[in-house]
Amino acid sequence: MKPYALFTTEERRKEYAELREKYQKFQALKLNLNMARGKPGMEQLDLVSDMLAILIDYGNYVIDGIDVRNYGELSGLPAAKRLFAEILGTQPEEIFVAGNASLQLMYDLISKAHTHGLLHSERPWCKEEKIKFLCPSPGYDRHFKICETFGMEMITIAMTPDGPDMDTVEEAIKDPTVKGMWCVPKYSNPDGIIYSDGVIDRIAAMKPAAPDFALMWDNAYCVHEFEGEFVPFRDMLSLCRAQGNADMVYEFASTSKITYPGAGVGVMAASVANQKYIASLVTYQTIGFDKINHLRHVCFLKNKAHTLELMQRHAEILKPKFHAVLDSLKNEIEPLKIAQWTQPKGGYFVSVNSMPGTAKRIVALMKDAGVILTGAGATFPYGIDPNDSNIRIAPTLPPVEELKQAMEVFCICMRMAALEQLGIE
Amino acid sequence: MKPYALFTTEERRKEYAELREKYQKFQALKLNLNMARGKPGMEQLDLVSDMLAILIDYGNYVIDGIDVRNYGELSGLPAAKRLFAEILGTQPEEIFVAGNASLQLMYDLISKAHTHGLLHSERPWCKEEKIKFLCPSPGYDRHFKICETFGMEMITIAMTPDGPDMDTVEEAIKDPTVKGMWCVPKYSNPDGIIYSDGVIDRIAAMKPAAPDFALMWDNAYCVHEFEGEFVPFRDMLSLCRAQGNADMVYEFASTSKITYPGAGVGVMAASVANQKYIASLVTYQTIGFDKINHLRHVCFLKNKAHTLELMQRHAEILKPKFHAVLDSLKNEIEPLKIAQWTQPKGGYFVSVNSMPGTAKRIVALMKDAGVILTGAGATFPYGIDPNDSNIRIAPTLPPVEELKQAMEVFCICMRMAALEQLGIE
Repeated sequence: MKPYALFTTEERRKEYAELREKYQKFQALKLNLNMARGKPGMEQLDLVSDMLAILIDYGNYVIDGIDVRNYGELSGLPAAKRLFAEILGTQPEEIFVAGNASLQLMYDLISKAHTHGLLHSERPWCKEEKIKFLCPSPGYDRHFKICETFGMEMITIAMTPDGPDMDTVEEAIKDPTVKGMWCVPKYSNPDGIIYSDGVIDRIAAMKPAAPDFALMWDNAYCVHEFEGEFVPFRDMLSLCRAQGNADMVYEFASTSKITYPGAGVGVMAASVANQKYIASLVTYQTIGFDKINHLRHVCFLKNKAHTLELMQRHAEILKPKFHAVLDSLKNEIEPLKIAQWTQPKGGYFVSVNSMPGTAKRIVALMKDAGVILTGAGATFPYGIDPNDSNIRIAPTLPPVEELKQAMEVFCICMRMAALEQLGIE
Repeated sequence: MKPYALFTTEERRKEYAELREKYQKFQALKLNLNMARGKPGMEQLDLVSDMLAILIDYGNYVIDGIDVRNYGELSGLPAAKRLFAEILGTQPEEIFVAGNASLQLMYDLISKAHTHGLLHSERPWCKEEKIKFLCPSPGYDRHFKICETFGMEMITIAMTPDGPDMDTVEEAIKDPTVKGMWCVPKYSNPDGIIYSDGVIDRIAAMKPAAPDFALMWDNAYCVHEFEGEFVPFRDMLSLCRAQGNADMVYEFASTSKITYPGAGVGVMAASVANQKYIASLVTYQTIGFDKINHLRHVCFLKNKAHTLELMQRHAEILKPKFHAVLDSLKNEIEPLKIAQWTQPKGGYFVSVNSMPGTAKRIVALMKDAGVILTGAGATFPYGIDPNDSNIRIAPTLPPVEELKQAMEVFCICMRMAALEQLGIE
């Protein structure tokens, strides 16, 4: 095997014909595989089944004098606040424990910014002519979709191996209509990189022109190593506070990939002033969230050390899956020099940059072979990848054997698309 | 005992002095009772404890081919839709099963009306000069608070023993800025009345000038009899559809007072067209709600008949509490002709209309004796009861013995306030 760039047209044609034959054989298998979303696999779900029974010991319902079965405690069960404060390295009074997902907390914060404004807003965002948001890309499609549904203008910020390109960010925030920025600081979605200390310090020190700039710090994968030891992360609330930016940051986390996706607990960490302001708005929305589920999590996860032990058990399940992806890419693609990809040690994705102009084609070929990938472009604002190159691979749901098969097809599709791009006529 | 109106000043003075002595004895007891909110009592919470263990039988997690432990099913678990469709008398495809409370569904619908508009809106409500909302009063304070937080102008509609005064409603909806109306059709909060068929038919037949008029049909107490047999209710979706108003109504219900307050399931019933539109907005907000809790409810409640059986067991707990309130009023207050009150057979409240001008005083006296009531005025828009008369009594939380004590104090306070109003100087 040699790089495709060195292939003659004749060699490309021959290679393509062979690949097409293999591809057609896979098509005949009528596969039905899904690598589109960061969905935990069945084994991971089974890992936490004990949680469902953890409250059956009657009399366990009162904690800190609060009967978790009745109404109340708008901002969450105090014991749950202590648990997540320990995990995130913040203070309990900086924690809001809500419903089943952090996505909803993010959406609701942006929604309230539009209807009521944030703590330092001059007016609700819906009364502003224009709202712009910084979107480090490739990034999480659901972040971008929130911007889209609220009609915000998204500004693409390039990702570097250290995090967002801060030169561009620091320039962009001089515009007072730039109201916020999405960040996934640890095991970024999809690249799986960890923001460097330098980048984090520069983010914490930002002085945006907008007084109500919202740093959306989505710490979705804060304890989600699948390889190696737990990597400590810095408390962004303290860092921002030290820079006089205490109210700029809203940190999000959830147990969706610790306990149950959809039946976990979503958390927002923010300054006490922000917590107070947000509670003053949320009090019209709900009497309180599911404290029984809060207590279930407190009893099951216990504390940070115990949570990290659980994450190691998730890692044992996930590591072979990620290796199946990475090994396949290394063996089948690397020698051909037609793509680059990240080598994450945590998070839920492998980010592949195929030959420019081929991502859409690859996803379409995969679909015709029965394997669903995240849509090409989804990792960029408005779903448009300027290079048509980035593909997000989510290897967590399928069992390893199926995953290996899916990756075989994937490598064939990548090669076919690259050859088409290089020319086979 | 004779009506206070027939008392001479001298008699009033004597009576007041005696009452004050009794009041001071209660003050010395340093009571700490709460009748402010419709909170279930401890016995009711214990009634449903089996639900917490119902899913521990491993392998129970897949229903209709859906693993409830993983992401997905934006509009709720199909089996839960079937359950609530049967209870509400609608079709499963008209049901949206969400998080832990219906209040949040109501808030979110109004919030989305503001940020995006409803199905038939010409523009988002935040782009309108003014939004008005019809508020039958006395009503539920949290409904009114939603109007308040979104800056809507509330129009008070008088309640009759049959429901809202429809002559006024039919006139009011000619104004295109009138965008909706709150209704609690069965065991209304706080009056506990059931809307008559005549009123319901007139509501279903409304032709509001606003194309996106939202009939907020809060069926909070749809199966919540505490006395007598289950009283069937009509399906408002069908009634509106028959009148060509299929998309006007949004019906809300929850299991907050069937299973757990705060850990139940909230439901919104609406036309298929509304469901489709709402899902197109909610898809940016969440990947899905807590389907494990949906399944827990499906397994525990089973069907309508079984749910009604459970409600009879709640009734056994609640009936003596309501009777303690009603007996006390009948014995202590009725002969004095200083107040009227409702005699509900379901719901969570007794609505007392004290002598005009005394409600605030009564609530203050109660507070000084250690008993918290719903704030006077809370049952009216902007918290202002024009007659300062309506007091909502929530008898469900305290045990019967405490409740009897609280009612003793209440009757004393009502009598003192009435005498003060009639004059004791």
